[in-house]
Amino acid sequence: MDKIKIGITHGDTNGVGYEVILKAFEDPTLLELCTPIVYGSPKIATYHRKAMELGTSFNTVDSAEKITEGKLNMVDVIKQEVKIELGQGTEESGNAALQSLEAAMEDYKKGLIDVLVTAPINKHCIQSENFKFPGHTEYIQDRAGEGNEAMMILMNNMMRIALATTHLPLNQVAGAVTQENILGKLRILNLSLKRDFSLSSPRIAVLGLNPHAGDNSLIGQEEQEIIIPAMQQAEEEGINCFGPFSADGFFGTASFRHYDAVLAMYHDQGLAPFKLLAMEDGVNYTAGLPIVRTSPDHGTAYDIAGKGMASPASFLQAIYAAIDIYRNRISYDEAHADPLQKLYHDKREDRRHTHVE
Amino acid sequence: MDKIKIGITHGDTNGVGYEVILKAFEDPTLLELCTPIVYGSPKIATYHRKAMELGTSFNTVDSAEKITEGKLNMVDVIKQEVKIELGQGTEESGNAALQSLEAAMEDYKKGLIDVLVTAPINKHCIQSENFKFPGHTEYIQDRAGEGNEAMMILMNNMMRIALATTHLPLNQVAGAVTQENILGKLRILNLSLKRDFSLSSPRIAVLGLNPHAGDNSLIGQEEQEIIIPAMQQAEEEGINCFGPFSADGFFGTASFRHYDAVLAMYHDQGLAPFKLLAMEDGVNYTAGLPIVRTSPDHGTAYDIAGKGMASPASFLQAIYAAIDIYRNRISYDEAHADPLQKLYHDKREDRRHTHVE
Repeated sequence: MDKIKIGITHGDTNGVGYEVILKAFEDPTLLELCTPIVYGSPKIATYHRKAMELGTSFNTVDSAEKITEGKLNMVDVIKQEVKIELGQGTEESGNAALQSLEAAMEDYKKGLIDVLVTAPINKHCIQSENFKFPGHTEYIQDRAGEGNEAMMILMNNMMRIALATTHLPLNQVAGAVTQENILGKLRILNLSLKRDFSLSSPRIAVLGLNPHAGDNSLIGQEEQEIIIPAMQQAEEEGINCFGPFSADGFFGTASFRHYDAVLAMYHDQGLAPFKLLAMEDGVNYTAGLPIVRTSPDHGTAYDIAGKGMASPASFLQAIYAAIDIYRNRISYDEAHADPLQKLYHDKREDRRHTHVE
Repeated sequence: MDKIKIGITHGDTNGVGYEVILKAFEDPTLLELCTPIVYGSPKIATYHRKAMELGTSFNTVDSAEKITEGKLNMVDVIKQEVKIELGQGTEESGNAALQSLEAAMEDYKKGLIDVLVTAPINKHCIQSENFKFPGHTEYIQDRAGEGNEAMMILMNNMMRIALATTHLPLNQVAGAVTQENILGKLRILNLSLKRDFSLSSPRIAVLGLNPHAGDNSLIGQEEQEIIIPAMQQAEEEGINCFGPFSADGFFGTASFRHYDAVLAMYHDQGLAPFKLLAMEDGVNYTAGLPIVRTSPDHGTAYDIAGKGMASPASFLQAIYAAIDIYRNRISYDEAHADPLQKLYHDKREDRRHTHVE
């Protein structure tokens, strides 16, 4: 049992969650890389499988302690009847999503899974006594953050992007862009690039807040008064950051190709171009926490739920990313461990690596 | 002399202006579509032509009244010595840009040119007694707007996009998004789509101001209180508008393909994705004015000035767009003219069209 164990939540049961999970594991070669454990319901999975005539089979177990390598394992965590209403958010679909998440988090704490990949939820339907969060990220930070601040990184094969502010009304964005905030985000991003992505000396591009990055204070002062001083402080700490860049020029010249990550100042500035670029293969990674959690960057996609049209590309990339990050962290932590301990660990972990790869 | 006469300004003389002009007319077939009149300097043009070993020849004249069809005409409007310092904004390069603009505007008023295509200026260097504007758009509105409000439309073959607010500091954007503003922009945009782009019943997508278009008032109120009421008013006036859409989802699903134009709420929200999409072939059109003016959507590109690396694609598209819009306007105005007059005009203009096309 040495392969990386990937805990998978089924998300909203009326969306495309089961479709992308089943499609992702249609090709059994993926099972050579990892051991998947879906926290779900064999009954609901079967419903989706039949509806879309998918061939993927799974191995039902009643606990993650009883999984089998080389199979798509499914832990049965939904005991009640769940009515499937494809394409509609319901209380039942929200409850089922939460049960899956809670079971996965429990098993993560018991060490039964190594990483977590989440299928999309409906943020409105999942709200309940046990879930009072804007989304997955905040829930996971609360449950397994150990006091650390989570930061969403969206990525595909061309760009990684993080945000200084996230789901704020636009009229509050400028006020939330402070030196401490930017410096904090740069620190988390920089460490993640090193530890999670094995970049020894990462380069981070920072976008301006105002049009044309303020055009030398002609269109706003925040670049001069807040962003540049924060970047200077970061530079003093050894973080390589560049900019602040004019967002339209930066994306228009595809300058993201020259940097390991981009820090955008707010939601639409970063995510509108990112999603245009990524379309199908974007991955959402929750950086900054002890747990490795990724997800596809699409939602429940109710409009195409049950139609067999959903692409598993983004979900597959989420799985690959989780595997890569987990491995990179092991290497990084070994390299940075106490040297005496390191000798001991190296021997053991090296063997493990040889086996895994 | 029935071909459309295109006035072309040379822009900043230390940038890529002459390079894209000369490259655009390297292939003489373009001269079958239009008669170009560059307001420039044969001496400076020759400097750039030699520096980049371009083959395009031009016909120097001292007035637009003496041009020749089938040639790249150049009206000599720069009488002083202009030192060329490739890749640097200077007072001299700014002055030369302004002289070109002023000469073109004068000839436009005399009816010597039909449309205007401008090469990029340096907005800082051009500032002077006669030019106290943020850019081309405001200058042209002032000189030839006849009291109309100009609106920038950026476009390529996949999307047209306009902005509710332009070069405002981000902390002023929310305050500037008013019902009157949005309604006014929708009216200009709608008329332009009909008259300039020959769309009989255009469909306009409107983006939200806040992340996720406010997510039903969870992230900001402006969608419910300002944008939607403005759209309802527009609908009552017969303007087909849709949304407000979440910007990241809208671009991530390439929804712009289903609409004739997009109204974004602010600069980076619209232009960061647009420029990422357009890269090389974006055109900036100044809608809403009696004069038809287009330009490439790139700047002076000082970093590659004089190196022969600039692509003329965007400049060429600007020429094609100006020609199309000018023709569309003639057809639209004919169709909407007083019926009795129309009979008379039709005969005359139909002949003209036959000749032109």
